[in-house]
Amino acid sequence: MRNIELSEIKKMEKQARENGDVISLAQGYPDFSTPWQVVEFVKNHLHEAVWHQYTLAMGNLKLREKIASNLNEEGGSYSPEEIIITAGANAGLMATLLSCFQPGDSIAILCPTYASYFQQFKIAGIIPIFIPLNEKNWSLDLELLSDRINAHKPKAILLCNPNNPTGTLLSKNELLQIANIAEKYNMLILCDEVYSFLVYDNKEYFSLSSLPEFKHNFIKIQSFSKKYAMTGWRIGYICSSKKIIEKILSVHDLLINCAPSVSQLAAISSLENGEKFVNYFKEEFTKRRDLFYDLIQDLNEFLFAYKPQGTYFYFIKLKKNYENFTSQLFNVAKVAVVKGNAFGPFYDNYFRISFAKEPEVLITAVERMKKFFTQLTP
Amino acid sequence: MRNIELSEIKKMEKQARENGDVISLAQGYPDFSTPWQVVEFVKNHLHEAVWHQYTLAMGNLKLREKIASNLNEEGGSYSPEEIIITAGANAGLMATLLSCFQPGDSIAILCPTYASYFQQFKIAGIIPIFIPLNEKNWSLDLELLSDRINAHKPKAILLCNPNNPTGTLLSKNELLQIANIAEKYNMLILCDEVYSFLVYDNKEYFSLSSLPEFKHNFIKIQSFSKKYAMTGWRIGYICSSKKIIEKILSVHDLLINCAPSVSQLAAISSLENGEKFVNYFKEEFTKRRDLFYDLIQDLNEFLFAYKPQGTYFYFIKLKKNYENFTSQLFNVAKVAVVKGNAFGPFYDNYFRISFAKEPEVLITAVERMKKFFTQLTP
Repeated sequence: MRNIELSEIKKMEKQARENGDVISLAQGYPDFSTPWQVVEFVKNHLHEAVWHQYTLAMGNLKLREKIASNLNEEGGSYSPEEIIITAGANAGLMATLLSCFQPGDSIAILCPTYASYFQQFKIAGIIPIFIPLNEKNWSLDLELLSDRINAHKPKAILLCNPNNPTGTLLSKNELLQIANIAEKYNMLILCDEVYSFLVYDNKEYFSLSSLPEFKHNFIKIQSFSKKYAMTGWRIGYICSSKKIIEKILSVHDLLINCAPSVSQLAAISSLENGEKFVNYFKEEFTKRRDLFYDLIQDLNEFLFAYKPQGTYFYFIKLKKNYENFTSQLFNVAKVAVVKGNAFGPFYDNYFRISFAKEPEVLITAVERMKKFFTQLTP
Repeated sequence: MRNIELSEIKKMEKQARENGDVISLAQGYPDFSTPWQVVEFVKNHLHEAVWHQYTLAMGNLKLREKIASNLNEEGGSYSPEEIIITAGANAGLMATLLSCFQPGDSIAILCPTYASYFQQFKIAGIIPIFIPLNEKNWSLDLELLSDRINAHKPKAILLCNPNNPTGTLLSKNELLQIANIAEKYNMLILCDEVYSFLVYDNKEYFSLSSLPEFKHNFIKIQSFSKKYAMTGWRIGYICSSKKIIEKILSVHDLLINCAPSVSQLAAISSLENGEKFVNYFKEEFTKRRDLFYDLIQDLNEFLFAYKPQGTYFYFIKLKKNYENFTSQLFNVAKVAVVKGNAFGPFYDNYFRISFAKEPEVLITAVERMKKFFTQLTP
């Protein structure tokens, strides 16, 4: 048997759901419903038999055309044949790792970053080359990145932009520099952009998918889950050059045949009707981000966090050492969070919270944490 | 890059869909709609936010309870914690292969069998140990099976029962003997039972899941796709011992997070309302099986096939050698079928057709084939 364990995020979420009185800030998913227009659209078309059976492995053509058209409006040059509809971003990344790489290949990865990547690497037999972000403000150290890539010559670099759990947003300039390094070393760039819609403070989001000259080595991994509050539909897409997409398609087909047809129907509607909800979600998340930041200022004797530039996570530093902090917080304070070392090997003294929760929930959670800290001697 | 190609089935199906005048007997999926009660049930519950977001990685509890209860009515002893809701059978098998085995492990496999298994083995680094069925009537040679297992000591045996593409149905006695061999060699039994509902001539279907004493090494892989005409929903399940299920769950989570929630909702309804449709499907498929058999008797100068005991496939032997038979049939006669060597290395002179099509489609397809054969000199 392989040595793959259930991720810390899912362990905490499962425990939380099994304990009714626990507040879970563990798994990151919006507590909104999917936009009602999307739900109505699905209801209106659900009797059509075409949505009951397999689509092509790549996905429904109309949906791929819509996605291509959106990408191309932003400067891209994608055809529907260069897009695979996937069952979410994890599924898209997994198909990519299992098709474009051999066991023993290495991939550079910024960290701290999304816990599942490390486990997915294990499944595919891929060796991670860690490029830690600056612990001061979680910015990218381009010199370190360049040195590490030069030293290890990985086959690819995997980016999460904006980054889960730190909220780091890579700038256009940084991405162009990474793209040039990738050209130099003939390296693929995999970019998980599931939080690209959730960037704060009027910052611009930039994706390399808007520059056709990088298509041959750029793989964009997207999802409808967070943007349209559609996590349960398991729907997303990847796009790249035709050559790469054909490679990934074979494995995608073996992993799932095709993305769920009904969810593809929903995705068509979310592209047509979802934008105003996205703006609403964004406003709400901005409020919650700021609320949570204000709330934890009361706890600055015990912890510290930078305000994220994107995503709905805080990666929080504990100012003192606590043994089994997350278990204790769960058992005593009834608040589920995820321990820092799930996001990379250097973060024992950190934990992640998701603020994609109702404001009252966040207020209660921080109250519980406050009581916990003031009662606890480290 | 790994050397995984798009399966022959999907290649043919894609070509067929791109050519409007081609009749596809390539990919096997029912041309029925999902039962209308299921569709109505989904419509009635689709506004409930719980179906918009992730379920637990294992799947919705109510659905798992229903499945456990059905299994236990047949003699099993499964708890909901011993079931994972998957995005179909392929996804369930892939998660099993990537969790319970190491690259380099070997698994015994009857053949000819479902083309995707070989590709899935490649992804997981698994070595197949072929156990060919008797070419005369495609029955199992238990002595050969026993010898091969003794010689190669594989970690598991993978069964497809009834078998795609030959329709072979393994009897209770054969399965018990395989189970005893598995005990002796401490081997897992993986059984893909997606066609278990589709057994003809009043034959009984038997599953090892009805015998609790084999649960510790038996992994049942099931799907709602074929039984309830739900291929597009991507929904199925696996069940086994708690120990094995926990192992598989970690990888399942990394492949897809959870099965699509809306499809889990549909699956609940199909278990409640789907049975009478299954009887209808079965009657229809029986007619189509018999019709196709009668039709091809006209072609017995060119080909031969055994009537399947289950599934909706014929695995057909060509009596003479034709070069690139399936391409020629596609290009000249406009009929898409799948070449035999997709189902195992010994079947160059065979091809598979799916008869899950309207009778008129089958009639036209055989007419086209007849014209093709009579015009062609091998």
